[in-house]
Amino acid sequence: MHTETEIDLIAARAAAAAGLFADTAPKDRAAALVAVADGIDAAADELIDIAIRETGLTRPRLQGEVRRTSNQLRLFAEAIVDGAYLDVRIDEADADYVIGPRPDVRRMLAPVGPVLNFAASNFPFAFSVAGGDSAAALAAGCSLIVKAHSGHPELSRRTADIVIAALASAGMPDNVFQLVEGQQRGVDLLQDDRIRAGSFTGSTHVGRLLADLAAARPRPIPFYGELGSVNPVYATSAAVEAEDDLLAGFVASVSGSAGQLCTKPGFLFVPEGADLGAVGGSAALVGEHRLLNPGIGRAFEQRRDTVLGAVGVTALAAGAVRVGDDDQRFATPTVVEVDVETLREHRDELLEESFGPLSVIVRYSDVAALPELHRELFPGNLTATLHSTDADADAVAPLVEALAETSGRVLFGGWPTGVSVTSAMQHGGPFPATTTDATSVGTAAIARFLRGVAYQSAPQQLLPMPLRDDNPWGVPQRRSSAGKSAGWGSLTGEH
Amino acid sequence: MHTETEIDLIAARAAAAAGLFADTAPKDRAAALVAVADGIDAAADELIDIAIRETGLTRPRLQGEVRRTSNQLRLFAEAIVDGAYLDVRIDEADADYVIGPRPDVRRMLAPVGPVLNFAASNFPFAFSVAGGDSAAALAAGCSLIVKAHSGHPELSRRTADIVIAALASAGMPDNVFQLVEGQQRGVDLLQDDRIRAGSFTGSTHVGRLLADLAAARPRPIPFYGELGSVNPVYATSAAVEAEDDLLAGFVASVSGSAGQLCTKPGFLFVPEGADLGAVGGSAALVGEHRLLNPGIGRAFEQRRDTVLGAVGVTALAAGAVRVGDDDQRFATPTVVEVDVETLREHRDELLEESFGPLSVIVRYSDVAALPELHRELFPGNLTATLHSTDADADAVAPLVEALAETSGRVLFGGWPTGVSVTSAMQHGGPFPATTTDATSVGTAAIARFLRGVAYQSAPQQLLPMPLRDDNPWGVPQRRSSAGKSAGWGSLTGEH
Repeated sequence: MHTETEIDLIAARAAAAAGLFADTAPKDRAAALVAVADGIDAAADELIDIAIRETGLTRPRLQGEVRRTSNQLRLFAEAIVDGAYLDVRIDEADADYVIGPRPDVRRMLAPVGPVLNFAASNFPFAFSVAGGDSAAALAAGCSLIVKAHSGHPELSRRTADIVIAALASAGMPDNVFQLVEGQQRGVDLLQDDRIRAGSFTGSTHVGRLLADLAAARPRPIPFYGELGSVNPVYATSAAVEAEDDLLAGFVASVSGSAGQLCTKPGFLFVPEGADLGAVGGSAALVGEHRLLNPGIGRAFEQRRDTVLGAVGVTALAAGAVRVGDDDQRFATPTVVEVDVETLREHRDELLEESFGPLSVIVRYSDVAALPELHRELFPGNLTATLHSTDADADAVAPLVEALAETSGRVLFGGWPTGVSVTSAMQHGGPFPATTTDATSVGTAAIARFLRGVAYQSAPQQLLPMPLRDDNPWGVPQRRSSAGKSAGWGSLTGEH
Repeated sequence: MHTETEIDLIAARAAAAAGLFADTAPKDRAAALVAVADGIDAAADELIDIAIRETGLTRPRLQGEVRRTSNQLRLFAEAIVDGAYLDVRIDEADADYVIGPRPDVRRMLAPVGPVLNFAASNFPFAFSVAGGDSAAALAAGCSLIVKAHSGHPELSRRTADIVIAALASAGMPDNVFQLVEGQQRGVDLLQDDRIRAGSFTGSTHVGRLLADLAAARPRPIPFYGELGSVNPVYATSAAVEAEDDLLAGFVASVSGSAGQLCTKPGFLFVPEGADLGAVGGSAALVGEHRLLNPGIGRAFEQRRDTVLGAVGVTALAAGAVRVGDDDQRFATPTVVEVDVETLREHRDELLEESFGPLSVIVRYSDVAALPELHRELFPGNLTATLHSTDADADAVAPLVEALAETSGRVLFGGWPTGVSVTSAMQHGGPFPATTTDATSVGTAAIARFLRGVAYQSAPQQLLPMPLRDDNPWGVPQRRSSAGKSAGWGSLTGEH
């Protein structure tokens, strides 16, 4: 066990590393991220073997996840290498500035300082030790402490060894990365004054507790938690008719990785008359899948009992949960059917996220009523999905607006599971999808770990590299020249 | 008094306006901001007369503030008109994407929804009804409720009338802007689920209370509070020798607007042997100035008594506080002197912000000890200032690093009062300077009221204007073409 002194030591190391790391050039940090990616790829087979044992996830799924994880690190390397993310703005001194003489002001984004990242259970690579939050924090130039998830301790340690070795080989300062284990240690560090931001992927319950701790500190810090999401999907009559594989695709999305994905569709809305006969058959084709760990298995078992026991709920595929060795649970998919009135009436039992292979199909009578229903039931989600046809466009436009208001990502066709890591991705949405609206996937995620700093009338040699006139790192600099602002360009005349 | 039903009505109006306003084109919102600016300029004389009576601030100061306020609105108009702030990213579908086939994903920044802005007492224009936070929220496309400051009610109402009329004349939806009065009303609205972000400029005490309320909501929202700052200034021996007007400039910065500025230098660090004789003379030239209101006057009186009464404190200019009609206070500047040890020992009495014309000069013995001293005493400030000479550069470099770590803006020479409103300005810093690190001045302030939304595989006609291929608003679109990412450009090879 770490003692209080050890917590102090870990935080002190992170703080000491923060200043040195912040001064590294983006291209050197990019090279370090690539070195981490290479290290993970080189050890992939060994890591995947550990992960299979510790999480019960399948080899193909984990192979894809490793590829995503290492390429995510490369994507962040690519995102920072030219320094555009620093958002350098240089306002030249201007004696004739319209609001009065202005001094030379130069602004850039700087790392916020030591970041504490709580790893997730369900993505032992992509949202864990070297996952997206870690990649974003390191890309930003923040020293990083990862609190390992207890569900895959050996994998976490082995991954941390690879990260530490790769960062050292790339010439990064010591202690830029540290791993800690144990819930209390995470809680203690989150409250340490030297930690400047927190990130988290996990349950709404735990995430909210940690967010509240972060907000209650003598000096509060931002806490970027990705908590819960039920990812509703809406299908119009025309889509149900046109898409033969709609229900098979739905069942596949619900049951992939045993439904233990934050983007799993928890609700599918179909018109009253839709034929749901295919659900049972599709579900029957899905073999049982281990749940991540005994705690998650027990929670799913209870949640499934609650849903199946709610009045007005019909099982289209009852599924099953079997208890195996070591208290592990193995599940097959459960899909139930309700009508809108039942869902509204039993919202306390039905609306909560079911983490595992379970989803609810809701029959609705009127597309025009869906926008208000959606706003009422689903005020905050990572994703929302619409299956419609071109002919539906006018009818669904108000629903699309409601989905965009309440979600981070709106999909047209397809299924929300499987999040592409790209510059345009948004993985985050109104609470409780995330504690802030920030994204934790895609290159925009780096913004969470940066803050603006301005230098006024600074001599060149005391400016950070990105703000200097000779621009030694060659970063993009947006300049406002003297004189240009005096008449507000064409604005005043135009309107 | 508003009743609960009235609060509900106000929030409902803001929510209804939010959707309509979000759909307006940036150039139309820009025109509306310019209309508000024109309205304020046209009524400037009348508004300034009211402000003088309600705040005790001088006509020249208020004339400058009105100019800043209307031009701030124009600056935000200029900042949004081309739509670059939407940060549109379009990732084309790519079957060969390195992480696996990717869909078409398009991301933009969208307004967060209704914003509640608590106006400040000390800037009746620039941080009030039509001030920077309001300009940023409206520029972002958020409907806005301003909670008026009780210190200038008539001015707030008159300004609100102008804002509402200008927005209507520019064709903006009804209820995009609403004014409310009364502390309880602000507190109630902050906890209304329809409000999606809060902003505030004021005391650390009140700001922290409101931030805690925002964080404790069933659905927490971001709260952008600009709370307290003591803005330390450091002068090297060489600077003290070289700058004849250093102390006169300091006294002017401390006493301008009776020291009621969030960027007022609360501490000036000078070498042990520095001659401080000029302080008394400079202070004696400053006439008495009314404090903003009786509450602020009484608080300053108490604060001044505490500082003057602390053991080890010597008055260089004692100043005075006179009680006039209507319980208003009139003050002349108080400047005291302490050594570092006294400051450390009596930090509970001395470190707190003194809102009014009072500052503390601290004698230090060793420049090399200043970085650690600064980190210890001043972990979060809006500004920090260094007066040094070119010959000092190596000696002060570590101090500059400490200042940048703990402040939003680092000045080299000059004084922190007088914040230029430009694209590179940062007005915000580590807590308690602000509740987040975000800026509330300058065009970067708009980012506080925006959130990312991604659309996946969307048909053109269901996309928002900025994301469409035919780009009807002509906004900048950053495209990642298919195929480009497969090899991570030159990255993998380079490092």
